[in-house]
Amino acid sequence: MRNFEYINPTKILFGEGQIENLSKEIPMDATVLILYGGGSIKTNGVYDQVKSALQNHKVFEFQGIPANPEYEVLLEALNLIKTNSIDYLLAVGGGSVIDGTKFLAAAAKYENDPWDLVSLRIRTTAQDALPFATVLTLPATGSEMNSGYVISRRATAEKLSSSGPGLFPAVSILDPTVIKSLPKKQIANGIADAYTHVLEQYLTYPTDAKLQDRFSEGILLTLQEVAPKVLNGPFDYTNASDFMWACTMALNGLIAKGVPTDWSVHGIGHELTAQFGIDHARTLAIIAPAHYRHTFENKKEKLAHYATRVWNITEGSIEEKAQLGIERLEAFFHSLDIKTKLSEYTEAYEDAGSTIEKTFIKRGWLQQGEHKDITPAVARAIVEASF
Amino acid sequence: MRNFEYINPTKILFGEGQIENLSKEIPMDATVLILYGGGSIKTNGVYDQVKSALQNHKVFEFQGIPANPEYEVLLEALNLIKTNSIDYLLAVGGGSVIDGTKFLAAAAKYENDPWDLVSLRIRTTAQDALPFATVLTLPATGSEMNSGYVISRRATAEKLSSSGPGLFPAVSILDPTVIKSLPKKQIANGIADAYTHVLEQYLTYPTDAKLQDRFSEGILLTLQEVAPKVLNGPFDYTNASDFMWACTMALNGLIAKGVPTDWSVHGIGHELTAQFGIDHARTLAIIAPAHYRHTFENKKEKLAHYATRVWNITEGSIEEKAQLGIERLEAFFHSLDIKTKLSEYTEAYEDAGSTIEKTFIKRGWLQQGEHKDITPAVARAIVEASF
Repeated sequence: MRNFEYINPTKILFGEGQIENLSKEIPMDATVLILYGGGSIKTNGVYDQVKSALQNHKVFEFQGIPANPEYEVLLEALNLIKTNSIDYLLAVGGGSVIDGTKFLAAAAKYENDPWDLVSLRIRTTAQDALPFATVLTLPATGSEMNSGYVISRRATAEKLSSSGPGLFPAVSILDPTVIKSLPKKQIANGIADAYTHVLEQYLTYPTDAKLQDRFSEGILLTLQEVAPKVLNGPFDYTNASDFMWACTMALNGLIAKGVPTDWSVHGIGHELTAQFGIDHARTLAIIAPAHYRHTFENKKEKLAHYATRVWNITEGSIEEKAQLGIERLEAFFHSLDIKTKLSEYTEAYEDAGSTIEKTFIKRGWLQQGEHKDITPAVARAIVEASF
Repeated sequence: MRNFEYINPTKILFGEGQIENLSKEIPMDATVLILYGGGSIKTNGVYDQVKSALQNHKVFEFQGIPANPEYEVLLEALNLIKTNSIDYLLAVGGGSVIDGTKFLAAAAKYENDPWDLVSLRIRTTAQDALPFATVLTLPATGSEMNSGYVISRRATAEKLSSSGPGLFPAVSILDPTVIKSLPKKQIANGIADAYTHVLEQYLTYPTDAKLQDRFSEGILLTLQEVAPKVLNGPFDYTNASDFMWACTMALNGLIAKGVPTDWSVHGIGHELTAQFGIDHARTLAIIAPAHYRHTFENKKEKLAHYATRVWNITEGSIEEKAQLGIERLEAFFHSLDIKTKLSEYTEAYEDAGSTIEKTFIKRGWLQQGEHKDITPAVARAIVEASF
């Protein structure tokens, strides 16, 4: 096991009815900015619960943070924060709203060009950030219990990430009833996103970090088990709870500790969102199978382990099991009604590989993946294998 | 899934060589008291590493915290803390030293009789406690990443626990190389202790909290897999790492969230330590099988689930699987060279049950266990079934 440092100070309040506890969790003397997206929280009851909880707080609102939180929109919110001396942020939404809020928590105290925070990957400490809470409305990204964020800039077709120990939410409310009103497509995206988060921290090479493997497999098995129920069944609180907690645990830092991680599926996937506007989770479903086929020699042992532990494939050679593992993965995405070929999302796919190759070279991202062997040329080949 | 609140602010530094980072983690202006046990840290190199890391800190020492940390000894340390205006504690040891240190962190700021902290189960907040760090030398109790503690008072044959949000270690150093010098008996105790911690949070009744089950099973399977290697093999860093991390995860709060817990095995086990001085872990190995046989009707479904998931017992009725689960559990303890009958530890066992019954009545502990059905009379029956 590799040496590691682990700390996660976020307080989780899990369960139905927890939103009202915001009244106690957010300091009474705070000036709060509530940030949210397109307004679905106004129809599903979440907005009313939040406003009710904060009825005795001084509250401002910013509506309209889009998916893949757009830099230009965030700058408007930043202006509101500075103008009104906001000192506490409350994200009410999914990963996009929370990620945008993390960027704002850092940008509010950053003196230079805010874009530096992602373009230079500046790490934000607690002293450098406003405190913030979240009310999660879409299980998927794990942003509610980690310190990373990703934002986008349409003008330059960039989608970039950053992080820092000051960007853990102080409190996150996880109320599984929010899943009741989610469109099926968003639930499918959430499952695929969380599932791929685990793969990025697990599907590398055998490390003999037994507990991390077991935990990763536990999350994958839980997602597989609840997926058809939360997607196709009537709303069920138990299934929604399992789904929500699994998504949070998939990316709160725990399963990555002591083991190698990949993250090049995300690195490449982000570019497909930046280029084509494809939903984040779907870019992962496009890239992961193509990636694992392309890097088969390096990953086959862990792929076989995955196939055995997660899909109960116990017969055959390492190569045969590994191959079946990739097939099961792809079939799992299909079971979520998520397509896994780039050409199924856009007709303009032909230059996608070469564009990504150039972008990675320009940024100096020359060695991604657990073996640092995902060069820009390999990334291009993976994208072209996903057509 | 039940509603829950989860927060764990302890920073873990895991791996060989991490002890030197104490120099950065403990504030330079702190007056530090290093607490340890019988002095084994002076022969295994840990003491030297700690002293070297803190060579520029103002440091006092207290040696001699015994297993089942004794109240009278802790009062001596408390006196030292008050006399020297100590404001930071550093526990270097196993669960006993860490638990004693937690008591002292609370007692240092408690105005009344320190015994109140456990006899009245007073919860200690961060403002009510000295900050403290730990260097773990014996994987077992999980005390290095939780906020609970247990201390003993020989004069009254009491072993009592308390906890509080202020009693999470600020930092815990987990260096698996410490296992190199541990006696086999202590390693066996550590495995049995951590294993039973998981059972207390898992072996109740089916709850459909899928991820918590998977995580619990992951810890049990990891402990089972590494047990023969760390017990009987030559020292191996990888196995030691898996063992150490599994013990920490077994009782850091995570797997208990959202599910019922039992803890009556511990409740009864503590009394056997108080009465007979039997090692904590061994009292659990005595009580757990007798307990599960006695409460078979209430626990059989989860026992069968345990047998299937953890021991791969897939044939038979619920009752048959559950019965085999208990047999495998008992065999696992035996594989650690741990006996599971009270009469194998003491000849004076005959009154153990009636003594525990009276003690529980006196303390008002009338309804232990996940069904609140472990009355003093049931506790007596369980103890008598363990003879």
